[in-house]
Amino acid sequence: MSNSGMAIRPVLWDGDVFRVLDQRLLPHKEHYIDCDTSDKAIRAIKNMAVRGAPAVGLTGAAAVALGAREIDARDVDTFMKKFDRLCDRVKRARPTGYNLEWAVEQMRLVVVENLSIGIDAIVEKLREKSEALINEDIEVNRAIGAWGKDVIPAEGAVLTYCNAGGLATGGYGTALGVIRAAWEEGKKFHVFACETRPYLQGSRLTMFELLKEGIPATLITDNAAGFLMQKKKINVVVVGADRITANGDVANKIGTYSLAVLAKTHNIPFYVAAPRSTIDPMKSRGDQIPIEERPGREITHLGGKAIAPAGTEALYLAFDVTPSRYVSGIITEVGIITRPYTRNIRLALQKEAGK
Amino acid sequence: MSNSGMAIRPVLWDGDVFRVLDQRLLPHKEHYIDCDTSDKAIRAIKNMAVRGAPAVGLTGAAAVALGAREIDARDVDTFMKKFDRLCDRVKRARPTGYNLEWAVEQMRLVVVENLSIGIDAIVEKLREKSEALINEDIEVNRAIGAWGKDVIPAEGAVLTYCNAGGLATGGYGTALGVIRAAWEEGKKFHVFACETRPYLQGSRLTMFELLKEGIPATLITDNAAGFLMQKKKINVVVVGADRITANGDVANKIGTYSLAVLAKTHNIPFYVAAPRSTIDPMKSRGDQIPIEERPGREITHLGGKAIAPAGTEALYLAFDVTPSRYVSGIITEVGIITRPYTRNIRLALQKEAGK
Repeated sequence: MSNSGMAIRPVLWDGDVFRVLDQRLLPHKEHYIDCDTSDKAIRAIKNMAVRGAPAVGLTGAAAVALGAREIDARDVDTFMKKFDRLCDRVKRARPTGYNLEWAVEQMRLVVVENLSIGIDAIVEKLREKSEALINEDIEVNRAIGAWGKDVIPAEGAVLTYCNAGGLATGGYGTALGVIRAAWEEGKKFHVFACETRPYLQGSRLTMFELLKEGIPATLITDNAAGFLMQKKKINVVVVGADRITANGDVANKIGTYSLAVLAKTHNIPFYVAAPRSTIDPMKSRGDQIPIEERPGREITHLGGKAIAPAGTEALYLAFDVTPSRYVSGIITEVGIITRPYTRNIRLALQKEAGK
Repeated sequence: MSNSGMAIRPVLWDGDVFRVLDQRLLPHKEHYIDCDTSDKAIRAIKNMAVRGAPAVGLTGAAAVALGAREIDARDVDTFMKKFDRLCDRVKRARPTGYNLEWAVEQMRLVVVENLSIGIDAIVEKLREKSEALINEDIEVNRAIGAWGKDVIPAEGAVLTYCNAGGLATGGYGTALGVIRAAWEEGKKFHVFACETRPYLQGSRLTMFELLKEGIPATLITDNAAGFLMQKKKINVVVVGADRITANGDVANKIGTYSLAVLAKTHNIPFYVAAPRSTIDPMKSRGDQIPIEERPGREITHLGGKAIAPAGTEALYLAFDVTPSRYVSGIITEVGIITRPYTRNIRLALQKEAGK
């Protein structure tokens, strides 16, 4: 197995410090933020230094591990009370992605299952679990790639959106993991990457990863995807996800829904690649997903400079919801989930991992 | 009649000089480029200092007027030969918008109809015609507004794209002219303006005009339009056009086609506002329209700064084509053209102007 995609480590533990690659500075600068407190890790999530639902989840788990060692408690009961408040605080850092909730719950489970070993040992186990989650996520991504590579044509073109790459995960990527796996298999396709306004994850991050990998890729503005589809330049669309509900509805970066509608109009398969930790089984439909609204300034300004007139009001919904009827399949680490989604998602959540 | 929309003059004659507002610097700076030669006017078209099919057409007419006085000829025959070459050179400045071809042909007609009056008098008539075309365009836009205002709801929201405003025309605007006319009538709607990557005509120019006018407006990224439609926030879409073929297919800023597909999917009326000078009766279908490809650098760089990694290849098709089946109506100065387009466009081109 090649090491491709592993060069990029958006999050990692270095001794007692959790390091977060500041993705706001990419591709110009590779700078890591050293998080030695839970506050710093939470801030890295809120200010989007780290982004991508799986990477946000991993950072949340690290914030819990860091926060646990900050807890001042003599007995496990007091520890648990403060630990619960910590978990709630971490979960609230960003609302739409489900992996954050999932990862925090994984951490809570560690405490619940180890109540008898003492606070210091629990704190150490949390640190170990946080690191294990990163490695598991990379393995999960590789499995997603292995299942998903078959949806990529041997020739032709794949459209992807935002960044669902190594940078959005522990490493390797979900949608980009699928593209990587197909490329490693020798398929000779072309990638079209949408720039993904306003944060430009496509131009700044996806192009960065594809250039590093040597996969032929062309950047387009988000508004150009429809015309390329009309001109039959796109064979398949593969995107990531921030939260998938029990019925297969998909929250992902704003603009995903438009692509899904355009893909359906042009009879182009539209795939979502995501680990099962993105699936929220407690929400039955996409309209129950909280959609994060971010400051309009992130649209009206770029790199600190105004690109719209003073006084411009801008609306920045950071995510949208794509109803499952637009989704050709959900590529997970246990296989590609297809219709009927409610039943098949339930079955997928029960499966043992691996291909 | 109010003076709204007249404050902005993207192109005007000032004595012997044709002045072009440099729209690349808006909204930060209002700077005019003084064109005293045809070359300068052509350059202003090519480098997008002036943009918007009608404004480009008016600048093309001015380039012809300026070029005519540069012609060195003793007799009308020699003048005509050189004048024809001038016309071809001006027409080639940008390929997609039809108004440029139309305006140049209007200028050629002036020469053909005045062959007997002598070169100096012809040159003077060309200068007069260039100025008349600007004033006619403003009148045409007001007529478009008068016909089109009925498609704007008394309440609710209008989505517009790119800039089809005073800045894209002689003044007042086509799509924004419709919005202005409805606003002047007292309708209380809200405008959503798509920023329109990569040139940001929506944020830089449309928001600039709407703020000046006091019409409530919200800026969104292009990729957000679909989700707003899904959430029933948009009642009607009104856009401009760069070229309309005999069957009603519409070339307009890249991204227009995606909006049209999304509007149809959500049962939202989709109107195109344009003067008849945008209609190319010699092309029967949209796939015959030449689509301008501009440098990828206009996507990878913003304000001279890279926003994508070095080595990024970007594809920038500046326009797309929306098939007429997505168009609810074409709002012109002689009325709203509806299906069947081929017949009704032919009738509209034969009509006397005015409402």
